[in-house]
Amino acid sequence: MNHPENISSSQRDQLHIHTDVILDKVVAAWIELQTKQPLVHCITNSVAANYAANVLLAAGASPAMIDNPFEAESFASIAAALSINLGTPTTEQMQAMRISAQTVTEKGTPWVLDPVGYGPFLKWRSEMADQLLLLNPTVIRGNASEISALAGNQVESKGVDSTVSSNEVYLQALPLLAHCECVAISGESDFLLSKELNAVIQVNGGSFLQPKVTATGCALGALIAAYCAVATPTIATISAHIHFAIAGKLAFERSQNVGHFNVAFLDEIYAMTADKLLEYADIEVLSL
Amino acid sequence: MNHPENISSSQRDQLHIHTDVILDKVVAAWIELQTKQPLVHCITNSVAANYAANVLLAAGASPAMIDNPFEAESFASIAAALSINLGTPTTEQMQAMRISAQTVTEKGTPWVLDPVGYGPFLKWRSEMADQLLLLNPTVIRGNASEISALAGNQVESKGVDSTVSSNEVYLQALPLLAHCECVAISGESDFLLSKELNAVIQVNGGSFLQPKVTATGCALGALIAAYCAVATPTIATISAHIHFAIAGKLAFERSQNVGHFNVAFLDEIYAMTADKLLEYADIEVLSL
Amino acid sequence: MNHPENISSSQRDQLHIHTDVILDKVVAAWIELQTKQPLVHCITNSVAANYAANVLLAAGASPAMIDNPFEAESFASIAAALSINLGTPTTEQMQAMRISAQTVTEKGTPWVLDPVGYGPFLKWRSEMADQLLLLNPTVIRGNASEISALAGNQVESKGVDSTVSSNEVYLQALPLLAHCECVAISGESDFLLSKELNAVIQVNGGSFLQPKVTATGCALGALIAAYCAVATPTIATISAHIHFAIAGKLAFERSQNVGHFNVAFLDEIYAMTADKLLEYADIEVLSL
Repeated sequence: MNHPENISSSQRDQLHIHTDVILDKVVAAWIELQTKQPLVHCITNSVAANYAANVLLAAGASPAMIDNPFEAESFASIAAALSINLGTPTTEQMQAMRISAQTVTEKGTPWVLDPVGYGPFLKWRSEMADQLLLLNPTVIRGNASEISALAGNQVESKGVDSTVSSNEVYLQALPLLAHCECVAISGESDFLLSKELNAVIQVNGGSFLQPKVTATGCALGALIAAYCAVATPTIATISAHIHFAIAGKLAFERSQNVGHFNVAFLDEIYAMTADKLLEYADIEVLSL
Repeated sequence: MNHPENISSSQRDQLHIHTDVILDKVVAAWIELQTKQPLVHCITNSVAANYAANVLLAAGASPAMIDNPFEAESFASIAAALSINLGTPTTEQMQAMRISAQTVTEKGTPWVLDPVGYGPFLKWRSEMADQLLLLNPTVIRGNASEISALAGNQVESKGVDSTVSSNEVYLQALPLLAHCECVAISGESDFLLSKELNAVIQVNGGSFLQPKVTATGCALGALIAAYCAVATPTIATISAHIHFAIAGKLAFERSQNVGHFNVAFLDEIYAMTADKLLEYADIEVLSL
Repeated sequence: MNHPENISSSQRDQLHIHTDVILDKVVAAWIELQTKQPLVHCITNSVAANYAANVLLAAGASPAMIDNPFEAESFASIAAALSINLGTPTTEQMQAMRISAQTVTEKGTPWVLDPVGYGPFLKWRSEMADQLLLLNPTVIRGNASEISALAGNQVESKGVDSTVSSNEVYLQALPLLAHCECVAISGESDFLLSKELNAVIQVNGGSFLQPKVTATGCALGALIAAYCAVATPTIATISAHIHFAIAGKLAFERSQNVGHFNVAFLDEIYAMTADKLLEYADIEVLSL
């Protein structure tokens, strides 16, 4: 396993080429998202429902929050992607999650698992996350505490916020690639582990205000699902994180306070362009 | 059935008179709404709950989101109007809907049905919408796909967003007037079928950004209910749509991006005046 | 019982000293909140979930909306404070409320009860509020109608909005001090009954637009809980109300319309400083 500091200059060149190729694919994914406006089936929490729907609409997708078990199968069967978020589960939502995940797995539709709050003090959802893991989600995303705990590590957690840094724990998430195509760990920088590239993609940007706005991580999970409908899991995950990071960076330039920052953030999600993606994307490819 | 293009000039004059009379009644309804601040019982979805409450408060009404079956009867019995929205139903909400609808029907309190997502892939709610239809809601509102499907037509739907245009399908909604006083189909222009006027009222205005903000349709349904507490079903439905269309138009003049547009939209809902209603209302009365 | 108008000048001096001492403690509580970022367990309604989380984050706390009965005990046992809000209860939430309240009571963790809509037309939640009262919440907060009714008075209510003024009914809330340390009645001025000080603290400020934004009261209840994790119940309740009142006053100076006011309000919650607390706090201590 090479750490970025230890790789040779020829490896660096190779990874640098990767970056350009990746960004071209990210732009293509963003264009596809605008063109196809894929239907994204979201089962999410009461805090994120409105916000995630607005982020998906602003980004170009067509979200539908269908979280009852009686319509889960038929709706998951027509969705272009599924996003499952364990933030504030109810018994009916839990049933809907299981049914929807099984449905999309059988159909080959991509889906994202966001194990919000995974850890020893929230066992009900954690057990559900463990079960959903066995259905092989396309992408798993969470903060550093959640992902590290889901991968089997002992982590101190503080409710639904992370107590560890993404750059410290991302290698702990490696075992999860046995269950999915991509693992995304959000934090000051985001770290995305890709089976396809056999690499870690570090995404920089965003703003320190982002964790001060609730449900941004939940919305990011839903956005990954949206991109999964128009790109490979790895490109989808990178695209969603870059889309978020640029919007966060540009929103912060416009407003340095949470209320207005959040309004500007939605603006910038909507106002994305291919040029902005190429100009502001700040990623590094680290070999695994 | 006359199409607008086919009506005679004397008919046109008659309809033009209608418009002025209607607008005077719309202004009176808006004033009544500010004065009476009617209590509106809302059973709505998790995406719309906060937004619809804020729209109703800004518009002058007093919303209460009471969606459990154990308080549904007693609360519906004191409400001035009821709004039922099928966006993200739970079993308990479904029970509350049935009880509340029966209660207001017996008391003669006006109520609005918004059959979100009605169609073959969301059968649970669609069956409930069919049952609620038999209780004769005062007003039915939805997008073109939902209303056309509820009226018994085969419609392709895409989750909760419409795939057909309001101006193409509004005549398909005619059979629904057997069950209600007014049918409202929202879209680029809104089309309102009125039993009282035996006419279709076309409401222009708004902004193309409105469908990019989630739950605007749901909030509109709740606002129709609020106006129903202070005006006839037809005037209430027209008033709510004009209120929305003007707020959307003025908000778009202030901001052309979704985040700030939505903030400005709430501002403009609140900043409505009788003068603005008369100056900016853009409606046409089409004979049925 | 002395009414403010009837107290002697020596009493006035004594109360004036109180004010300075109180404000110093409020500043200390605010600093502690920023430093400790306490984990606040919230069981709240579908209208308030997103908003209350954003207010807590902006204020410095770490909110977690955990409202299922299966995780209520383990999560309440690690939280620094608990906030229970009866806005839109479900059967599962009701179970979670009971379990969480029992857990924190046993552990001595502070908790806040917000009996939204308490009254004869909403019996299910009112009975739960009565039961939770017997577990002795640390702080009870609500609008004038709710608090007066909870204290056993006959009050006309209008859904979840108050029909009586806080300054008219606050003395009716006195019997509730048998069950808690502090009772907070919000209104044009807020009145806080404190067992510790044997006094009523009147908090002025805010803006007439605040009741035009939904869930502000619910968010205030959650903020009291957050402050309870870092101060005595009385100082916590005063601190939360002052924090809100100053943010409301400064937000209104920036925007006089609901949409932008609400965005500015979140800004001002986040932009609080010790200097602003001392400069803008407007409280009076009235003897009981």
